[in-house]
Amino acid sequence: MSRFWSQIVRELTPYVPGEQPRQANLVKLNTNENPYPPSPAVLAAIRAELGDDGARLRLYPDPQGTVLREAIAEQEGLSPDHVFVGNGSDEVLAFAFQALLAHPEPLRFPDISYSFYPTYCRLYRIAARQVPLRDAGFALDVSDYAGGGPVILPNPNAPTGRAIARADIARLLEANADWPVVIDEAYVSFGAESAAPLIASHDNLLVVRTLSKSYSLAGLRVGYALGHPGLVEALVRVKDSFNSYPLDRLALAAATAAVRDTEWLARTSAAVIESREKLSADLAALGLEVLPSKANFVFASHPGHDAAALSRALRERAIIVRHFGAQRIAQWLRITIGTPAECEALVGALREILAQAA
Amino acid sequence: MSRFWSQIVRELTPYVPGEQPRQANLVKLNTNENPYPPSPAVLAAIRAELGDDGARLRLYPDPQGTVLREAIAEQEGLSPDHVFVGNGSDEVLAFAFQALLAHPEPLRFPDISYSFYPTYCRLYRIAARQVPLRDAGFALDVSDYAGGGPVILPNPNAPTGRAIARADIARLLEANADWPVVIDEAYVSFGAESAAPLIASHDNLLVVRTLSKSYSLAGLRVGYALGHPGLVEALVRVKDSFNSYPLDRLALAAATAAVRDTEWLARTSAAVIESREKLSADLAALGLEVLPSKANFVFASHPGHDAAALSRALRERAIIVRHFGAQRIAQWLRITIGTPAECEALVGALREILAQAA
Repeated sequence: MSRFWSQIVRELTPYVPGEQPRQANLVKLNTNENPYPPSPAVLAAIRAELGDDGARLRLYPDPQGTVLREAIAEQEGLSPDHVFVGNGSDEVLAFAFQALLAHPEPLRFPDISYSFYPTYCRLYRIAARQVPLRDAGFALDVSDYAGGGPVILPNPNAPTGRAIARADIARLLEANADWPVVIDEAYVSFGAESAAPLIASHDNLLVVRTLSKSYSLAGLRVGYALGHPGLVEALVRVKDSFNSYPLDRLALAAATAAVRDTEWLARTSAAVIESREKLSADLAALGLEVLPSKANFVFASHPGHDAAALSRALRERAIIVRHFGAQRIAQWLRITIGTPAECEALVGALREILAQAA
Repeated sequence: MSRFWSQIVRELTPYVPGEQPRQANLVKLNTNENPYPPSPAVLAAIRAELGDDGARLRLYPDPQGTVLREAIAEQEGLSPDHVFVGNGSDEVLAFAFQALLAHPEPLRFPDISYSFYPTYCRLYRIAARQVPLRDAGFALDVSDYAGGGPVILPNPNAPTGRAIARADIARLLEANADWPVVIDEAYVSFGAESAAPLIASHDNLLVVRTLSKSYSLAGLRVGYALGHPGLVEALVRVKDSFNSYPLDRLALAAATAAVRDTEWLARTSAAVIESREKLSADLAALGLEVLPSKANFVFASHPGHDAAALSRALRERAIIVRHFGAQRIAQWLRITIGTPAECEALVGALREILAQAA
């Protein structure tokens, strides 16, 4: 600690992202990246923006990201003033915490959830109330969120992968009509119901999305939010007090092309879903309990084997999965859906590890 | 205003960036962009990162920006733990305000300076004390900053363009040895002395830079800070509580190539400086007062013509310059150094406007 640190920096407990190894030839199933490349239209759009000499890079990007917001709005049947874009959904979430979720009443979210939420609460000094998920299956019951303060939920939840129905979100919104409710849909395109159709009838709903997973653009850092213009304006006010130009020219061009290519999204998402169902069955056949997932990962546990030990044994075989330290999920592993070959490599390695231990 | 807004959003007065017109064929001298394209090495690095199919974009970037930090450290004769990288120097400045400049004692900065500073103060609820620049020439005298709280100064200052000597920065650091001092060097490569050589002997100095101006990469959003590892760690703690991956893969690759091409930087900076000296002389010949600039812009005023009217008349001739509303500089225009042809267009238009008004 340096004597020059501000009080807030002294109080922080930063988020620890999943490992991004510099070592090549790993089967990397730890940070929920999409196993397929982005749409060819993305590559074409970046090349067009670069041109022959990259001369456009000397000019600032559009601070409002207008063209991208128009493209997203068109896909969602909304107007551009319902759309906010930012430097990855983590930045969008950070702005939402500061602009919409910081109230005297505690913010509620599941006890097992995206582990960045408690970090944002410390950064913005937001009182948090973590609501326990139900039973051993980590089910989320919206009746645990009766009115009384802002709410944030991922749907599907992470790291469990479990989704709730749109009708449940509607109940949650109506039970909290005086409070902002943020639905974090980072993983929504892998089979869950989006809350976005509820925006027209619920001015307290903000839906947050990322292009990292479903559009295979984790490397480009683009996220967005959908909601009533009053909520979007709050995010714009924070953004314009922080960084006028959060999205660079290449990211804007790439993201616009990505969201327009709905056919590529449908095809790659379907492939991930098919692999997920096969992997879930294969893991169950090896004796693991696998939660029903609507995401591009599965959450699994073996009743006879320590999860941390399994994670280490996989790592020795050049396969990385994510193991969290939190006590309630200490016996679970979050495994990203890779290519069919990567899923097979994982299953083969696990079979070997379990056989050796038997 | 929406009833869902947090208290801080209600209090904000967002920064208003210079206009980024969608109209083409304007002579755009309003946001201090470099008139020359970035180094060809930048284009090659982006193309290499893209590869044939953009498949690497599906993977998260290095959250620490290690290779870029190493490249910057090498240029500066520092170690990578002296270097922080972020999504444009605005994000780096925002983190510095939150992590290092938020103390019970008011933050001091010049009354005429980067107009984002008061915005950051409101966002982070930092008490500010604006220190008047000296006399009509807007000179900055460091003896106006005797010890007693954190300090931020741009050097060269914006929008005046005036620089102070490294020896003055050293005096400022010694008079404020118990406080963090941030020197914002957005425009340093156009002839001013950098404070970076003082880092080794002053653990309270943070130097902030951008690749937007000198490296012609405004469109890519890369900035960085140099300082004692204790100061850098404070920025990392805030970043890791906000957004793990602020820099995307293409920006990291491009910025690394840009900082390594010192020859391109020297050549384009020299061209800008040459144009600045010629433009300053041409404007003086038209009767304007022009402050001595070490930046890629000049700050100029005509004793007989209203600055806002001049700005409007230029705009009618498809030339945009920046006019600020603040009372003390209401009769001044900030004019970016363009290509020689753009500078000539500006001088020709001004000559015509002044002749018509005479």
